[in-house]
Amino acid sequence: MKLEIDRERLAGELDALGAISQEPPPVVTRVVFTEADASGREFVKNLCSQAGLATRVDAAGNTFARWVGADPMLAPVGTGSHIDAIPNAGRFDGTVGVLGGLEAIRALMRAGHQPRRSIELIVFTSEEPTRFGIGCLGSRLLAGLLDPKWASARTDRAGITLDAARRAAGFEGSLAQVRLLESYYSAFIELHIEQGPLLEQWKIPLGIVTAIAAPAGFAVTIQGEGGHAGAVLMPHRHDAFLAAAEIALAVESSARASGSIDTVGTVGVCEVFPGAVNSVPSRVRMEIDVRDTDESRRDAMVLKIRQALEEVAQRRGVEAEMEQVNADPPAQCDQRIVETLEQACAAHGLAFERMISRAYHDSLFMSRIAPTAMLFIPCRGGVSHRPDEYASPEAIAQGTLVLAETLARLSSQ
Amino acid sequence: MKLEIDRERLAGELDALGAISQEPPPVVTRVVFTEADASGREFVKNLCSQAGLATRVDAAGNTFARWVGADPMLAPVGTGSHIDAIPNAGRFDGTVGVLGGLEAIRALMRAGHQPRRSIELIVFTSEEPTRFGIGCLGSRLLAGLLDPKWASARTDRAGITLDAARRAAGFEGSLAQVRLLESYYSAFIELHIEQGPLLEQWKIPLGIVTAIAAPAGFAVTIQGEGGHAGAVLMPHRHDAFLAAAEIALAVESSARASGSIDTVGTVGVCEVFPGAVNSVPSRVRMEIDVRDTDESRRDAMVLKIRQALEEVAQRRGVEAEMEQVNADPPAQCDQRIVETLEQACAAHGLAFERMISRAYHDSLFMSRIAPTAMLFIPCRGGVSHRPDEYASPEAIAQGTLVLAETLARLSSQ
Repeated sequence: MKLEIDRERLAGELDALGAISQEPPPVVTRVVFTEADASGREFVKNLCSQAGLATRVDAAGNTFARWVGADPMLAPVGTGSHIDAIPNAGRFDGTVGVLGGLEAIRALMRAGHQPRRSIELIVFTSEEPTRFGIGCLGSRLLAGLLDPKWASARTDRAGITLDAARRAAGFEGSLAQVRLLESYYSAFIELHIEQGPLLEQWKIPLGIVTAIAAPAGFAVTIQGEGGHAGAVLMPHRHDAFLAAAEIALAVESSARASGSIDTVGTVGVCEVFPGAVNSVPSRVRMEIDVRDTDESRRDAMVLKIRQALEEVAQRRGVEAEMEQVNADPPAQCDQRIVETLEQACAAHGLAFERMISRAYHDSLFMSRIAPTAMLFIPCRGGVSHRPDEYASPEAIAQGTLVLAETLARLSSQ
Repeated sequence: MKLEIDRERLAGELDALGAISQEPPPVVTRVVFTEADASGREFVKNLCSQAGLATRVDAAGNTFARWVGADPMLAPVGTGSHIDAIPNAGRFDGTVGVLGGLEAIRALMRAGHQPRRSIELIVFTSEEPTRFGIGCLGSRLLAGLLDPKWASARTDRAGITLDAARRAAGFEGSLAQVRLLESYYSAFIELHIEQGPLLEQWKIPLGIVTAIAAPAGFAVTIQGEGGHAGAVLMPHRHDAFLAAAEIALAVESSARASGSIDTVGTVGVCEVFPGAVNSVPSRVRMEIDVRDTDESRRDAMVLKIRQALEEVAQRRGVEAEMEQVNADPPAQCDQRIVETLEQACAAHGLAFERMISRAYHDSLFMSRIAPTAMLFIPCRGGVSHRPDEYASPEAIAQGTLVLAETLARLSSQ
C-alpha cells in the first residue's frame, strides 16, 4: 500500500475553512451554533459526501462521516476533532484533526486500503466553552457525562438557552439520544496541533500523547463595598478588585509552587463592577482555570487557591464565593493505540516523542467510552487561540500520514 | 428676615428627580445627554420658571436660572451643582446642591429678601466622567479649561461624539461660546453631601470646605502575550492581567504609604482581553484615579505608580503604557466666603467644622474664575455613588438654610 497525502489540497481546504469566520481574515471566530459554525460544519460535511462517506448529524450537532468497512457489524475506528473557534482565534486548532482525518481516509481510499472495520470521522460540537461555559459539549454528551436537561437549560450572555440555539441552528431531536455506548468505537484517535512549544523546540515532527491534562474550572464572585473613589479613605475600603488581584496572583504562585511544570493556573476572565474610574469596585466576577496531568496535584492547587481566597476575604472584609464549574479527571491514553502510532511513525521513518497534552480535547471524554490516543504536530512558537496560530503544510501532512497509517492498522484488526 | 426652608417640598422634589432614571428605583442612572438626563434638566428648569427665575441654557447644556437683583449690572452670586449620575447611583449626589439651591432662593423670596446682586442657580452638565471620560465637563468649559474642539471630538463607547450627543439632546450653538469671564460671578457656593463619613461620625450638621482635592486620572494599557490556558507553561507566560493585578496593588500601597490620610488611589476600571476562561490574558486596559489635597504628594504617588509599572513590565516581559487623562491642581476655597458661611451657621445656631473635600466637584473649576467655597451636609455611612446613598430631610434643610443665609449676605454686598 502506497500512502500519499495530498498536501496542497489539505492546505487549501484548511484555508477555505479558516475563511468561514464571524470576523475578517486572518481572525477566526466560529462560536458554536452561529452561522459561521453551521457553514463550517456544512463545508466539512460536503467534502465527506464528495469522498463517498455516509454522514449523519446528531441532536447536538456532532457530525459523523463513515467509510463502511468489509465487516460493517464491527465497532468502527473513530477519528476527528472540532471546528468551533473562540473569538480571535486561528485556523488550525481542531480543524487539522477534522480535515486531516478526512484526508487520511481519502489517502487510504486512493492507496486501495480495504478496511475490515469501518472508519468514522467525527466533527465534535463546541469543544470550546465560549458560548455556554461548557467545553467539549459534544463529546461530553457522546460519553454520557453531561445531563442533557441541565445542558439544555444553560444560557449564553444574551440569555439564549443551549436548546434554543441548537434548534435555531437546525439540530432537532432529543439531546438524551446523543449518548454512545462504550462498545461503539473500537478505538479513537485525534490529530491536533500541539498548542505548546515543545515539538518545535525538540525539532521532532510528531508527539504521541500518553496522558491528557484536565482542567478544573471555577467561578469566583467577590462582593466588597463600593463608594466614591475620592471620598472613601484607604483604611475604610473593601475594594473587591484589589481582593481579586491578590487571588489572581495566588493562582499564579500556587501553580508555580506545585513542583511540576505540568501544573498551570489562569485567570482569563475578570469583570469589575460598577466599572467607573471614580468608583471603588464593589463586585468582581472571575473565572479560574486550573490544569494538571495529576489529579491530586491539581486538587492540592485548588485547595491552596481556596485558602488564599479565604485569607484575602477575611483580611479585606469582602465576601468571596468560589463555585466549581467543572473538574474532570485527567485521562491516560490507550497503550495499544500508542504503540500502533509509534509503529506507524517508524514505518514512515518519522521521529516522535511521547508527551502529555496540557490542553484538554474531545479525546479526554472519548477516552471514557473508547480506547483513545492523540497525535500532535508542532505549531509555530507553540502559539494557539490567536490569529497568528500556524502549522506548516509539511507538518500537517506528516501528522495526516501517520494518522492514515494508524487507521489502516487499527481498521484491519 | 425670617428664613424658613420648606423641608417636605424639597424632599418631595428630590424624590421626584430621583425617579427620573434610566433604571427602576431606587437605582439612579442619569448619564449625560440621555433622555433621563434631559428630562431631569427639564424638571429643574420648570421648577425654576415656576419660581419666577429667568432661565437660559448654553451650548454644553449648562442651565442657568437667575433671580435678578436690584442692581442687575453687578456680578451675581452663583450657586448650584449637577444632576447627572453614574450608573447604579443614588438620589442626593449633586441634586441636593441644585434643588437645595433653588429652595434657598425660594426661601429668600418668601422671607422678603431684596438682593442687590442677582442670585444665579447653575445646573452643570456632566460632572461625572461616565460617558466621555471627562469629569466636570460643563464647569471646565465655563472656566475655559477645556479645548472645545478637543472635547467635541471625544467619543463614548458606542462611538458617538460628544458634539453629536449634545446636539441630539437639543443643545445647539458653539461650545466655544460657553466660557465665562473671571468677572462673571462675584462668588460661587456649592451645597453638596459629604460623600464621606466624617460629619456623621462627628455628629456635626455642617462642613465648611476649605480645600478641594483634585484627581489625576490615568489610562494604563498592558500588552502581554496570549495563548491557550492549558498549553502555555507558567514560566513562558507574559500574562497581561497578572501584571495589571500587581499594578493595582501598587496603587493601593502607594496611596497608603503617602503619609497622609488625604491620599487615595483607585483602579475602578479593568478590562481583560480576550476574556475567555481558557485563554491567557493578552491585553488589559485599566483606569487609575489618584487624589490628594496636596499636589506634590499626589505627584509623588504618581511617580511611585509609574516606577511600579516599569518594574512589573520589565520583570513580566509585557509592554505597559500609562497615559495621563487629566491632572488638575487642588483648589483652595475663598476665605471671605468661608467666613460668611461660618457666620451664617452661627446666625442659625448650627455647629460646623472646617474640612476638605476629597471628592472633586464643579467648584474645583469654578474656583478658577470666581471666589468659591463649598458647604457639606452629612450622608449616611459616608456612602455615595450607590442606590442606598442617603441624606435626611433635616440635614438637607439645615444645609439649605445656611446656603440661603449665605446667599442673602453675599448678594447684599
